[in-house]
Amino acid sequence: MNPPALRLEVLNTGSELLLGAAVNTHLAFLGEHLFRAGLRVERQTAVPDGPAIGEAMREAFRRCDILLVTGGLGPTSDDITRELTAELLGLTLAPDATVLARLHAYYERLGRTTTPQIERQALVPDGAQVLENAHGTAPGLYLPPRPFGAAYSPHVFLLPGPPRELRPMVLDQLLPRLGAIRRAAGLGVPARRTFRLFGLGESFIEQKVGDALLALPELELGYCARVGEVDLRLIGPFESVERGATLVRAEPSFAGHIFTEEGESLEEVIVHRLQALGQTVATAESCTGGLLAHRLTNVPGASQVFLAGPVVYSNAAKESLLGVPAALLAEFGAVSEPVAQAMARQVRQRCGTDFGLATTGLAGPGGASRDKPVGTLFFALAGPGEACTVRHRVLSLTDRESFKHLATQHALNLLREALSAPR
Amino acid sequence: MNPPALRLEVLNTGSELLLGAAVNTHLAFLGEHLFRAGLRVERQTAVPDGPAIGEAMREAFRRCDILLVTGGLGPTSDDITRELTAELLGLTLAPDATVLARLHAYYERLGRTTTPQIERQALVPDGAQVLENAHGTAPGLYLPPRPFGAAYSPHVFLLPGPPRELRPMVLDQLLPRLGAIRRAAGLGVPARRTFRLFGLGESFIEQKVGDALLALPELELGYCARVGEVDLRLIGPFESVERGATLVRAEPSFAGHIFTEEGESLEEVIVHRLQALGQTVATAESCTGGLLAHRLTNVPGASQVFLAGPVVYSNAAKESLLGVPAALLAEFGAVSEPVAQAMARQVRQRCGTDFGLATTGLAGPGGASRDKPVGTLFFALAGPGEACTVRHRVLSLTDRESFKHLATQHALNLLREALSAPR
Repeated sequence: MNPPALRLEVLNTGSELLLGAAVNTHLAFLGEHLFRAGLRVERQTAVPDGPAIGEAMREAFRRCDILLVTGGLGPTSDDITRELTAELLGLTLAPDATVLARLHAYYERLGRTTTPQIERQALVPDGAQVLENAHGTAPGLYLPPRPFGAAYSPHVFLLPGPPRELRPMVLDQLLPRLGAIRRAAGLGVPARRTFRLFGLGESFIEQKVGDALLALPELELGYCARVGEVDLRLIGPFESVERGATLVRAEPSFAGHIFTEEGESLEEVIVHRLQALGQTVATAESCTGGLLAHRLTNVPGASQVFLAGPVVYSNAAKESLLGVPAALLAEFGAVSEPVAQAMARQVRQRCGTDFGLATTGLAGPGGASRDKPVGTLFFALAGPGEACTVRHRVLSLTDRESFKHLATQHALNLLREALSAPR
Repeated sequence: MNPPALRLEVLNTGSELLLGAAVNTHLAFLGEHLFRAGLRVERQTAVPDGPAIGEAMREAFRRCDILLVTGGLGPTSDDITRELTAELLGLTLAPDATVLARLHAYYERLGRTTTPQIERQALVPDGAQVLENAHGTAPGLYLPPRPFGAAYSPHVFLLPGPPRELRPMVLDQLLPRLGAIRRAAGLGVPARRTFRLFGLGESFIEQKVGDALLALPELELGYCARVGEVDLRLIGPFESVERGATLVRAEPSFAGHIFTEEGESLEEVIVHRLQALGQTVATAESCTGGLLAHRLTNVPGASQVFLAGPVVYSNAAKESLLGVPAALLAEFGAVSEPVAQAMARQVRQRCGTDFGLATTGLAGPGGASRDKPVGTLFFALAGPGEACTVRHRVLSLTDRESFKHLATQHALNLLREALSAPR
């Protein structure tokens, strides 16, 4: 695929990103929404607070047509993005009356007075447009291209660092402006399909369809192996993407493994499917410690289909909250097929749901025995009707969170299979 | 603080990062562990799979002494980091017998045969050292400095993209090598304290201690506002950091708000405190949907102190799993002070724990009423003894996940206060 006529870069500022004190979630959010808007991030850079921001901007100015800068607009002494940008573009900063009024109102509500330090947030470079911040004090700024060196500066957007301030600003104010810039450049929106497959490796997937897909005109192919799933990404002209998609769907060895063509998560697929079927689920978790419920309840509308999810870490709780027979726990141990089955049946019955989904296993580091190594997982699905399926896996993983995540992948996929079974 | 004598950069490769199909968790992991090893990431760059990798490496070669590259070592056609690096450094690639043997053994275990495509993973540039991959097929590579243009190339480390392959390789093989490089350069390890405060704004924190801290010699100051907490970061010479820390501890308006000086999470602080006290907790969640249990069970050793956490999304489940009186639900509604209180008392009593922690609220988008807007949160703590505290907040947040996260922050902090109360 030819490089886009509009080169867009993201510059994330903030020492916390480089010190490991915060995960950069901006790039994924921006990348996803920009692509839908017909633009792609060609490069992303993160630098600490300080002069490195100016250096990185100067370099990006030479490479790109649109530069999105996040962070460093706040009230503390390490927030200097606004000042560095004005300096770089040779613009003077002046307080904006509207922004200043909002600042004063905001701090009044908190019963506090503003300081010169805080009022820096109302400074606007001349010629810049203010992007109102509905969820914080520092507004965003848009600086249109202007003569810079021998050429022009890119479209520069300064966005706030906190995700809850940045995200609505991107959706409500950035994307419409970028859409206009893209249309003015006469660019269309490429097609994309993201197949997500459970239970197959990326090299196996490529062996089956890679060559045939690469033969399609201008089709850009991407693979991404993640915990318990692989993405197969097709990007390009509509015609090629659709021919490629037909090819992927027709591959016999993929049957039952593809759970989305639109890059949805397993929990999204399940909640939407349950909504469509008018059915409900309850979970009973031991080793996954609430992640199963957390993932399902992250999907808007989950409350219509997810009724309850007892996390029963101790044996006592498995008895008192779920009514798992003490004898069963004593005879087979908490990490066993009969207990997984009992948990699924009991939670389904106690919550009156169509399905009961249960996990029990050994996340480690402790608790292993000869026949039950760390990574042992039993997961069970009760329903539809009286049916109850239970499966056993030994997951080879490096840490607790990966174990929990992969365990929920297996459990969710078991439910997905039941929901997509022909009826 | 002076710039480090060893400039280190991270280059993350992978189109999925720029398309929003994956969150870059490598930087936070590397930043944290590198800092502890006395090194800092001066800049991080992410580029799509393809020639952009070579361009970005060439630029980084001019700027840094150590370059860490992640991704693009796998078996699929878009994995070309190894080849681009060899080309850039003018090195020839040859298959490594040991790596090849491991590859064959790995695929044999899967009952599959290797292909030339797969065997690319065994190619090693001459002069490079192999970093064994204990959790995948593609090994890492270390390329020591060599003449490049007018100067020398940096120390280049190629690391696998999947976190579960990268992380152990970093801990077991990268950090020891980087430690040796740092010592050889005669560099020490700067001191750091990360105060984390609940319930105060970053500008308030700076007003109280900012000037006094900035007056300390070579003290680098950082602020990071996150959901429901603020980091105050002190980095520099031991002496300055300790004097700064004393100053922060002595600030009266911070009393009760500082929950760690070492950047621990609220859940880590709580689990460790409960372990020290030999006490236990059970949670009962409605609006937080399992996130409370998930966060607590992410901490190794949680099973000693966290016994159970029913997620009771529906009213029926609040009755059947917790025994919340139907009359109470009917009279006050599920999102109410009495119900929050009943949930906390009931879960504590049913699970026989020292504490019961409960949340109920309106994550939205639906469900709001005149007196209960979206964002309404009630959270309650039962225990120690017969005590039961309940609090009410209206959270102004933009999305479901932020609401859930901030709600758990409030609930966890209530428990933390009880645990740190003098007894």
